[in-house]
Amino acid sequence: MGSLTTSPAWRALAAHAREQEGVHLRDAFARDPGRFEQMSCEAAGLFLDYSKNRIDGRGVGLLMDLARDRGVAAARDAMFSGHRINNTEGRAVFHVALRNRSDRPMAVDGDDVMPRVRGVLARMGRFAEAVREGAWLGHSGEAITDVVNIGIGGSDLGPAMVCQALAAAGHPRLTMHFVSNVDGDHLAGVLQRVRPETTLFVIASKTFTTIETMTNAASARAWFLGRFGNESAIARHFVAVSTHAERVAAFGIDPANMFEFWDWVGGRYSLWSAVGLPIALSIGQAGFEALLDGAYALDRHFVDAPLERNLPVILGLLGVWNRNFLGAASLCVAPYAQALARLPAYLQQLEMESTGKSVARDGGAVSVGSCPVIWGEPGTNGQHAFFQLLHQGTDLIPVDFIVARHSPSGLADHHRLLLANCLAQSKALMVGKSAEEVRAELGACGVEGVAREALVPHRVFPGNRPSNTLVLEDLSPRSIGALIALYEHKVFVQSVIWGVNAFDQWGVELGKEIATGLAAELGGGPPGDHDASTRGLIERLRPEPS
Amino acid sequence: MGSLTTSPAWRALAAHAREQEGVHLRDAFARDPGRFEQMSCEAAGLFLDYSKNRIDGRGVGLLMDLARDRGVAAARDAMFSGHRINNTEGRAVFHVALRNRSDRPMAVDGDDVMPRVRGVLARMGRFAEAVREGAWLGHSGEAITDVVNIGIGGSDLGPAMVCQALAAAGHPRLTMHFVSNVDGDHLAGVLQRVRPETTLFVIASKTFTTIETMTNAASARAWFLGRFGNESAIARHFVAVSTHAERVAAFGIDPANMFEFWDWVGGRYSLWSAVGLPIALSIGQAGFEALLDGAYALDRHFVDAPLERNLPVILGLLGVWNRNFLGAASLCVAPYAQALARLPAYLQQLEMESTGKSVARDGGAVSVGSCPVIWGEPGTNGQHAFFQLLHQGTDLIPVDFIVARHSPSGLADHHRLLLANCLAQSKALMVGKSAEEVRAELGACGVEGVAREALVPHRVFPGNRPSNTLVLEDLSPRSIGALIALYEHKVFVQSVIWGVNAFDQWGVELGKEIATGLAAELGGGPPGDHDASTRGLIERLRPEPS
Repeated sequence: MGSLTTSPAWRALAAHAREQEGVHLRDAFARDPGRFEQMSCEAAGLFLDYSKNRIDGRGVGLLMDLARDRGVAAARDAMFSGHRINNTEGRAVFHVALRNRSDRPMAVDGDDVMPRVRGVLARMGRFAEAVREGAWLGHSGEAITDVVNIGIGGSDLGPAMVCQALAAAGHPRLTMHFVSNVDGDHLAGVLQRVRPETTLFVIASKTFTTIETMTNAASARAWFLGRFGNESAIARHFVAVSTHAERVAAFGIDPANMFEFWDWVGGRYSLWSAVGLPIALSIGQAGFEALLDGAYALDRHFVDAPLERNLPVILGLLGVWNRNFLGAASLCVAPYAQALARLPAYLQQLEMESTGKSVARDGGAVSVGSCPVIWGEPGTNGQHAFFQLLHQGTDLIPVDFIVARHSPSGLADHHRLLLANCLAQSKALMVGKSAEEVRAELGACGVEGVAREALVPHRVFPGNRPSNTLVLEDLSPRSIGALIALYEHKVFVQSVIWGVNAFDQWGVELGKEIATGLAAELGGGPPGDHDASTRGLIERLRPEPS
Repeated sequence: MGSLTTSPAWRALAAHAREQEGVHLRDAFARDPGRFEQMSCEAAGLFLDYSKNRIDGRGVGLLMDLARDRGVAAARDAMFSGHRINNTEGRAVFHVALRNRSDRPMAVDGDDVMPRVRGVLARMGRFAEAVREGAWLGHSGEAITDVVNIGIGGSDLGPAMVCQALAAAGHPRLTMHFVSNVDGDHLAGVLQRVRPETTLFVIASKTFTTIETMTNAASARAWFLGRFGNESAIARHFVAVSTHAERVAAFGIDPANMFEFWDWVGGRYSLWSAVGLPIALSIGQAGFEALLDGAYALDRHFVDAPLERNLPVILGLLGVWNRNFLGAASLCVAPYAQALARLPAYLQQLEMESTGKSVARDGGAVSVGSCPVIWGEPGTNGQHAFFQLLHQGTDLIPVDFIVARHSPSGLADHHRLLLANCLAQSKALMVGKSAEEVRAELGACGVEGVAREALVPHRVFPGNRPSNTLVLEDLSPRSIGALIALYEHKVFVQSVIWGVNAFDQWGVELGKEIATGLAAELGGGPPGDHDASTRGLIERLRPEPS
């Protein structure tokens, strides 16, 4: 494959971007009555309106040329075929097998993984239902009331985000807690609110060596034994999501309560695996399977739909357009749903750890900007915080609005206001408000002359700021499953365009190595070889000699 | 004052940036053994290490020239003197009076505000202590166990962030809840967990008309009356933070329980006012006053210290350097403290609503990039999510690391790991790892030849990525107060450099106007005049006719 930026598709897009420079979205809509029909698309229960992007039908066609030129379809098929597309680690990337709801085999190196996938899924289901029904009892014979998931990164963000998204459907007896940070305050805050007799800890770490998780797990274990004083009680209150049976057993967990996953499941793609156990505990196995169903529906769409009607392809390519041709350095994700409050944090990992790279699969340099910063807060809250900058700041920042037609709360007036605000923001970002409009408005309030002219520039909105709007029918497990899979595949599409391996994360290694030495040093070990800043900070942070 | 970008100070900085282009921070440290001493500074209990920025002593001197050229000191003095520096709204900006802990008067138009400030503070204190001691009882004679703050934007983020930051010092009987989003799920989720008999609602809205807050307040009131059925009970369970006595009384709140503030307190600068009532309820009046003390200490430093040793001046100017001379489009805020989990969201409002503008005070265009995107998550969590991109992504993204020497949890091994990780990340971002180092490392593990060379580029870290490290002694009210005031004044300094009014927020108006019409329309009102996208989305989101 030739160089990205000298490819005819890329050059055509660059030329198109120059042509479009003077076009305001307001005029694009005025000129083309079919714009919304043409630039919207539906699949797996998700509706995407992408008409408020600074691109037209011809530009979208050029993006599709780029996708073809870069081999998006072939790369996708390689992933779904179990090829070892994670080339720097020599692994397959097969989280899609976890939600294969058909009876088709899915194999890595000729080995069908589906029997193992279904086996763990069934074990998770039996365990989750036993806890939910109160058949699984703690050591003193009480039913479980609190689940504490101890994990970090992919073993935290996915289950935490989904449990919050679906909290309205959560089991009424069970409260879910998530401890991730090695900061002892995180664990201490949770332990204050639970009783050992009725608490179930889920320790999620593939290798059972992740330093944060094992530190928290050890402290949780000590707390538990401090109240209970009985090592044999551990097996009723601790289970593991891991692959390392030996370390799990050494911790005191019954290997029968170890739920495994495989090296072809990357951390940030793992909520569909046993890592999703807290989800099954909260909403039940049927709910967890509905989540898988939603993701599977989106998978089928990704595989089957033509590129032009393919949601993750469209979303991925528009991201490339905004990033590389309009210069957007970040993407704001604004879910108009309090239940999706942690979706931006989840997507931060999914996107920034996958494509936040400047080295291509083949070891060459990525010649354009890859992953932008992903950030956001739920609407309407964001409107009262940072939307000022989206409307009137100096940079172009695209927004993904996400909204559900129906709300679990059933408070109709609240929901109407929520929807109205979501639509109003995307409209306001797009149409803006001209100086003439401001003048007329101020005039109507009796503000005239010099006073008016002084205010006008401050109240002008340039508009022409792009957004997508994603509409979910509801906040059901099925819809959430499809939504997450949509972003997963969007990221995959972008990784193919930018030419990076979306499934490794070498950038996390150096900090880990250095931290190991520094921890010893802060604990009184011999001084390492540091720059003056690190040395000075160690001096300042080291505990006083006791 | 002349144009920013043609000023000698700006041009000198631009030239300096070009000179520094080839300099790696690693070499800057190697060359100058005094770098850490010279580029660190302490005040009000906060220690700032800014030596890991891509600038040297001469560059910092040029930034100080810029500050002098733009009149930072004079602008600061105008604010502290109560001048109407919010020129588009004709208001003074006087939140610093709220934490004036001296007996000096502070006047707006010759009118000393301190007696009113002290009066409300004393009333807040009496009320908070009554609730905490159990002297204030609910209608049925029970003590309060749950406080639900209903507010949004500045009436939410400040108190919510601080209550979480200081949760370890919170009253053991009181659980704090914050409802902000108009999404009914937010309120419904909280109401599920509280009893009307023991719940106190704080309704925070300056005008008592904020649509989200009044919608939530009305639903909370209906829920309360649905269980209690007694309008007179409202006065024991609802209090207001507002200035509109009439609307507050009409709601059923006893005007004696209305805590007021003033038009010179901007929403995002209001946690020091009655808006901080939840803080006083949680940590007590002495704690709240310690928070004010911390902010006051930082205020005195900002006013008294020379620019070269002035923390908010340094932090603000470095932000300008990174933004305008190194091209950083965002700033990552990484508090290594789970208790500060909401600090990034708080700073998003503080910074992006204050300086996210492209029109200058005088109505002219801002000629450079103003506020960058502010985003972040607590460490160590971020390391397992988006730090990949910080280390190996294509963009330069500066980081503010924030860490406290002492932790409330007292889990020493956890805290040592937390500190080690914080220092390790800033070091790793700065030093990076060269291809030669990677080769040696892989060689030592027996990876050789083609296999090694294929891996090398993926494991290289370019380094030279800038950060600040802010060290707090502890997570006490005093430290948190100083920290917040530091960022407030940092934003102020930047607003002076960029020439924008940090205290208006016209950019939030257009969306509000449009939302009002859309809400009526979604409720069955007559169709408005919309683009095809908005029209299409209304069709899709409108409830089915019943």
